[in-house]
Amino acid sequence: MTTPDEIRPDDMRPGEIALPFDPAERKPDAGIVFIGRAQTAWTEQSGCPRNMGQARERGNRAVIVIDAAWRAGLAGLAAGDWIQVLIWAHKARRDLIVQAPKHRDKPVGVFSLRSPVRPNPILLSLTCIAAIDHGAGRIDVDALDCLNGSPVIDIKPFIASADRPDGLAGNP
Amino acid sequence: MTTPDEIRPDDMRPGEIALPFDPAERKPDAGIVFIGRAQTAWTEQSGCPRNMGQARERGNRAVIVIDAAWRAGLAGLAAGDWIQVLIWAHKARRDLIVQAPKHRDKPVGVFSLRSPVRPNPILLSLTCIAAIDHGAGRIDVDALDCLNGSPVIDIKPFIASADRPDGLAGNP
Repeated sequence: MTTPDEIRPDDMRPGEIALPFDPAERKPDAGIVFIGRAQTAWTEQSGCPRNMGQARERGNRAVIVIDAAWRAGLAGLAAGDWIQVLIWAHKARRDLIVQAPKHRDKPVGVFSLRSPVRPNPILLSLTCIAAIDHGAGRIDVDALDCLNGSPVIDIKPFIASADRPDGLAGNP
Repeated sequence: MTTPDEIRPDDMRPGEIALPFDPAERKPDAGIVFIGRAQTAWTEQSGCPRNMGQARERGNRAVIVIDAAWRAGLAGLAAGDWIQVLIWAHKARRDLIVQAPKHRDKPVGVFSLRSPVRPNPILLSLTCIAAIDHGAGRIDVDALDCLNGSPVIDIKPFIASADRPDGLAGNP
């Protein structure tokens, strides 16, 4: 429950702080390429789940379609695999450095939130492959919490020994 | 154990496939900004751990220094918090779509590997905050598996309900 309700193109809430510049207008330090798109049931901000928990509860599968140029990179992925999907939140503003989500009692820094509104609007979503068609570049997954049509920028395998803190101090 | 041994500026191994273009030379689809840098004990590719498990075993803490412009975004993070750190692997080539890491018995697609060599060379590292100085933008963490000086592009809180698959089918 750590993302705000909307991508918020214009409004600001009490206590929020915007940067004195828009990261989207700055000369980039590096460039990314889109490797595909996400197809989800969420076509409007107002109905988009705020996190993967909500996305799963609604029971809608989602699809990732990888563009032809990159499909050879899918070799080795199979149904049942858990993957970390990096999505570019292409409609999110990037300048709110302190935010006041409705579920938090006071404004907090963007780096303590999973809000899509952030300097580099990259979403991280852990999802499970339900089916994969390597030739078509199509991956059916159990859920995604992004808007329909969002660009995909990376897929990584979930590695339990790296991606979960069990056995280490803290152990969430 | 799913990353190759080096960032591999030039060489290719049997069975590897390079794209017919270099993503780094393409017109970017979006631009990212660097928000800080990682300070690690790993100054050479040859000695860089291949994953967070190896990085932890070696017992070297690491430091993230966030640039002044973005430090307000750290409010709400505290020692003991687990964070997902996104690092830009600035020295990694980006065109190897099929790779043959030494620990795999055959070449596989980049999206089934955690290799830093990928179309968008973004590393995902789950680490624990040992200490944080919000004013100085300094975060001491238990480990990082990237080269010293690597640009940081995002920090997100680890959210157990989103970032671990427990209780769902598959359950790694």
